[in-house]
Amino acid sequence: MKKIGIIMGSDSDMPVVQKAIDVLNEMKIPYEAHIYSAHRTPAEAAQFASEAADNGFGAIIAVAGMAAHLAGAIAANTVLPVIGIPCSSAAFGGMDALLSTVQMPSGIPVATVAVNGGANAALLASQILAVSDPELAEKLRERRQSAAQKVLEKDKELQQKML
Amino acid sequence: MKKIGIIMGSDSDMPVVQKAIDVLNEMKIPYEAHIYSAHRTPAEAAQFASEAADNGFGAIIAVAGMAAHLAGAIAANTVLPVIGIPCSSAAFGGMDALLSTVQMPSGIPVATVAVNGGANAALLASQILAVSDPELAEKLRERRQSAAQKVLEKDKELQQKML
Amino acid sequence: MKKIGIIMGSDSDMPVVQKAIDVLNEMKIPYEAHIYSAHRTPAEAAQFASEAADNGFGAIIAVAGMAAHLAGAIAANTVLPVIGIPCSSAAFGGMDALLSTVQMPSGIPVATVAVNGGANAALLASQILAVSDPELAEKLRERRQSAAQKVLEKDKELQQKML
Amino acid sequence: MKKIGIIMGSDSDMPVVQKAIDVLNEMKIPYEAHIYSAHRTPAEAAQFASEAADNGFGAIIAVAGMAAHLAGAIAANTVLPVIGIPCSSAAFGGMDALLSTVQMPSGIPVATVAVNGGANAALLASQILAVSDPELAEKLRERRQSAAQKVLEKDKELQQKML
Amino acid sequence: MKKIGIIMGSDSDMPVVQKAIDVLNEMKIPYEAHIYSAHRTPAEAAQFASEAADNGFGAIIAVAGMAAHLAGAIAANTVLPVIGIPCSSAAFGGMDALLSTVQMPSGIPVATVAVNGGANAALLASQILAVSDPELAEKLRERRQSAAQKVLEKDKELQQKML
Amino acid sequence: MKKIGIIMGSDSDMPVVQKAIDVLNEMKIPYEAHIYSAHRTPAEAAQFASEAADNGFGAIIAVAGMAAHLAGAIAANTVLPVIGIPCSSAAFGGMDALLSTVQMPSGIPVATVAVNGGANAALLASQILAVSDPELAEKLRERRQSAAQKVLEKDKELQQKML
Amino acid sequence: MKKIGIIMGSDSDMPVVQKAIDVLNEMKIPYEAHIYSAHRTPAEAAQFASEAADNGFGAIIAVAGMAAHLAGAIAANTVLPVIGIPCSSAAFGGMDALLSTVQMPSGIPVATVAVNGGANAALLASQILAVSDPELAEKLRERRQSAAQKVLEKDKELQQKML
Amino acid sequence: MKKIGIIMGSDSDMPVVQKAIDVLNEMKIPYEAHIYSAHRTPAEAAQFASEAADNGFGAIIAVAGMAAHLAGAIAANTVLPVIGIPCSSAAFGGMDALLSTVQMPSGIPVATVAVNGGANAALLASQILAVSDPELAEKLRERRQSAAQKVLEKDKELQQKML
Repeated sequence: MKKIGIIMGSDSDMPVVQKAIDVLNEMKIPYEAHIYSAHRTPAEAAQFASEAADNGFGAIIAVAGMAAHLAGAIAANTVLPVIGIPCSSAAFGGMDALLSTVQMPSGIPVATVAVNGGANAALLASQILAVSDPELAEKLRERRQSAAQKVLEKDKELQQKML
Repeated sequence: MKKIGIIMGSDSDMPVVQKAIDVLNEMKIPYEAHIYSAHRTPAEAAQFASEAADNGFGAIIAVAGMAAHLAGAIAANTVLPVIGIPCSSAAFGGMDALLSTVQMPSGIPVATVAVNGGANAALLASQILAVSDPELAEKLRERRQSAAQKVLEKDKELQQKML
Repeated sequence: MKKIGIIMGSDSDMPVVQKAIDVLNEMKIPYEAHIYSAHRTPAEAAQFASEAADNGFGAIIAVAGMAAHLAGAIAANTVLPVIGIPCSSAAFGGMDALLSTVQMPSGIPVATVAVNGGANAALLASQILAVSDPELAEKLRERRQSAAQKVLEKDKELQQKML
Repeated sequence: MKKIGIIMGSDSDMPVVQKAIDVLNEMKIPYEAHIYSAHRTPAEAAQFASEAADNGFGAIIAVAGMAAHLAGAIAANTVLPVIGIPCSSAAFGGMDALLSTVQMPSGIPVATVAVNGGANAALLASQILAVSDPELAEKLRERRQSAAQKVLEKDKELQQKML
Repeated sequence: MKKIGIIMGSDSDMPVVQKAIDVLNEMKIPYEAHIYSAHRTPAEAAQFASEAADNGFGAIIAVAGMAAHLAGAIAANTVLPVIGIPCSSAAFGGMDALLSTVQMPSGIPVATVAVNGGANAALLASQILAVSDPELAEKLRERRQSAAQKVLEKDKELQQKML
Repeated sequence: MKKIGIIMGSDSDMPVVQKAIDVLNEMKIPYEAHIYSAHRTPAEAAQFASEAADNGFGAIIAVAGMAAHLAGAIAANTVLPVIGIPCSSAAFGGMDALLSTVQMPSGIPVATVAVNGGANAALLASQILAVSDPELAEKLRERRQSAAQKVLEKDKELQQKML
Repeated sequence: MKKIGIIMGSDSDMPVVQKAIDVLNEMKIPYEAHIYSAHRTPAEAAQFASEAADNGFGAIIAVAGMAAHLAGAIAANTVLPVIGIPCSSAAFGGMDALLSTVQMPSGIPVATVAVNGGANAALLASQILAVSDPELAEKLRERRQSAAQKVLEKDKELQQKML
Repeated sequence: MKKIGIIMGSDSDMPVVQKAIDVLNEMKIPYEAHIYSAHRTPAEAAQFASEAADNGFGAIIAVAGMAAHLAGAIAANTVLPVIGIPCSSAAFGGMDALLSTVQMPSGIPVATVAVNGGANAALLASQILAVSDPELAEKLRERRQSAAQKVLEKDKELQQKML
């Protein structure tokens, strides 16, 4: 099975990354996580991206805040699907990172998820691998059913409380 | 080869859809385009999504403006990767559609691209299929090289003009 | 008397829902509250909405945050008035939920109230029922007078403090 | 049948009002339209609102731009449901009017629809009257079906074009 | 000397009002503070405004948050200068109140100051009275000099710390 | 009678200034208009402001766009009331100018009106002079009545059209 | 004299670049302009930046829109001062480019100027070179005086028109 | 070596200033820090700026929040490079200060860095001095390498934790 690469711009992004890792572990998808900054270590970030396909990665998750160039910088160096997680920071609640991640110019897409959306980034990566992996697709469908079940159980609890 | 589904909420989204279609044609990726509204034909939209995997689709592109629920509504009914294109409308330049598309709750990701980003949505869909299709990956890499070449040629022209 | 349906996308929305319930209790209007997610349990949300009129509901309040599709998804499946409460979340203070709720396309309105506006949603639902219920209308007018009275009493206290 | 009141802050709002009138005519719902400004004729606006219930109105649509106080000023003087349409103006695409209309304090709700959402305001008013008018509810359901039908026909045309 | 009226929409605005009162006390300008809501007690707010000139007021400060209609509602009923203080609330940091206060339509101005700008509203009111009161103008100039002096003293302290 | 000073940062602001001049002419209030830039001619702007009270001015209107410092720079050099008109420019619809004008620090207020609000700035200036000029106050009241009359006449025309 | 490098992400940025070139020509500062995209030709952009100091450049102006990573990508590869011009595009008036350019993480600054601010970017570059070039500094001071003179002449014309 | 001037509008900006001072100390660049307000002490701010070049300064950092005019007011009085740090305040997360600082009119640039970006402002000032100071440029390159090294070490630690 292909691996998912997770690149974060700074170790302060680890809480968001952890949410992604939890999902990948749950889905039993192998991954590698790295700290590479688009601005402080641009060469390493570019190198990771350009070798990722050959190194067995199937998709890359990039996690960054503020002028969040990391996902775009990764995407510029690979044709693997790159998923961008914009992180919130103090000033603008993540609007800076969201626009820096999603508003990519024509030619180099970044698949952007919600601000701090670690779990969804990993689920999207899983869904991408599942396109050619029916077993993983089945696991994802089961996860959906289980999530639906939890909502319905919470609804049932609510009904009992309300009696 | 798996097909790409393109669902638009209204036929007024066709100019954005056309940019996606042009890329898919260029990449020789089969597709189906439909007009299904998350609000006016919710059942048809949900049905398309829930049967898409069985019907040979590998990813779905959803195109909508304003309170753009279409991508989320599609994503809620399939574990195929769903790519959302927020369309700009008169009032907020697409900020309403962007936030409605990207800020999905945990569990149901939508891979969001730039406002009106038809070409990038199709490229992202292509990249997703290319994860298990080395030939398509090669075509995407060639497209990148050709895009880079065009930039460098334009730079060369600029240098000559500046002499 | 017709019932008010309250649908929340997640049990984390309960504090906002509670403000609505308090008003409905005060107005002695029957209600049912449910947890149904537009994305995790889309079928249940749609079913509730499509059967709501037959099940004795007169209006539905939908409560959701982020890419808040719930009100729109409910509205797509009923011609009962649907009242949307956009909930604030960490990133954008509720702007994402507000735009996702209010910017509905032509044909499917959602009556949107303020961010986290639980009490006003229930008052609006009450006002809707009161259109054909003069007794309820009278109760609402009394509530207004009492609210006005409280403001004037606070003003009186202020005048005494200022002497 | 109860009438719908339509109050606009200025005759420049007429294009948005016309969209509401068209829907009310289609639904055969009687209405009265007035130009009353919250700021230039506050007394007339307040008087209209406070007498509206006695004058046979079932709901009021208020249409205004910029610091759009009109819906709130109407709502402050009646317990009829008040529907606010924020109008776009040059500076902020209607964000000023949207926030001025929707962010009402607890106690006085305004049912806000999309920027320039004339048709949806009238549909919402119709849905409110339809709560106690099964025939009107049926008409609204038929309108929904017809709208759905139009979407599906456009989809069919698209399929034929794509062959 | 003319009085300054201070109207707040809710007693929760008192901290902002207090900053205004402190300045008026410092300037020895008489004032009256009231709690009148544009929406809960519209008649009282309008009456206060329409009688303010005759009651010896020279300017009115209106303090409100969210869809902050209070300043506009006051201004609609008097030709005294009306100063609006937009108050911040949880959702949008005061952007809703700012736009609701400042974006007044042609004909009815509101002199808007910064979000939560209690002191500046009172200073502006003082400056308005000082147009025809040279002694007050002198006091305001002295306050400016004293403020400048404080800045320069802080700069001097900083220089000593930095040695 | 005291004069109104109108300072614009650039002659491109003249259309907004003209709306102010029209109102002052209508009110028969003397004025002087100048082009002084806060950034290109800071000394002249400061000098005008610091001498304005002695030169017979009663209030100053400052008109500027983008990082609109002009009103603040004028206000820093006088205790006359300073009215700021934020002008819209291409990028942000005037949000840059609005925030640069209204968000003044404690101590130096600027009375801010709506984006491009030339007429309201002049009306506010008139209202300020009218605090000590009952005849001008009467003129302003008459202007209000005439504006109200126009609204009511437009309403009457609308009623006739609707018959 | 050191050269100024001007890098634009796309030839569609040329109108903004031209404003910079005009100022550099006026200041008789040598420059080189290139089209290098942060995403389509990341290697060329990085190489230009990393060799710029050795190639006789004293500062680099980077011009880009949308998720404008170019200035940051250049800045990551040189310690020359990098000036970023965010370009406006259809969706958000340049807010995406502004935040992507200015919100750089600690360690890698980008000197950001106004949206589409071509002339100011070149003036800033000139001011940077002028720190160690008194003659250029003198030229810049003369340009300021001439700009001030133009403002004062326009003011004089205005006075004559107003007589 | 030329000095860096640091001007803050209020001593409450000291935490941001301290981050700049730390970098300048690290780079062994002499500096002077002052508290001068654009609005409370405009003359002192202007005088500092207009004499700065003659007093041995090579660049000026201006630090201010809200309607942050300080950097522009400094820039208007010198042709030294002026670096603006917009400070966040309660209401808008620094958007007011950012737009007030960066959106300067043509002719008077301000080199704007991120909200609260004290370290980057000092690094930019250092880079400006380094244009004509190869030793300082070398120090800056070393700082970059050391920052890159730290990122790579954190990545190494992460790899070990993940084993």
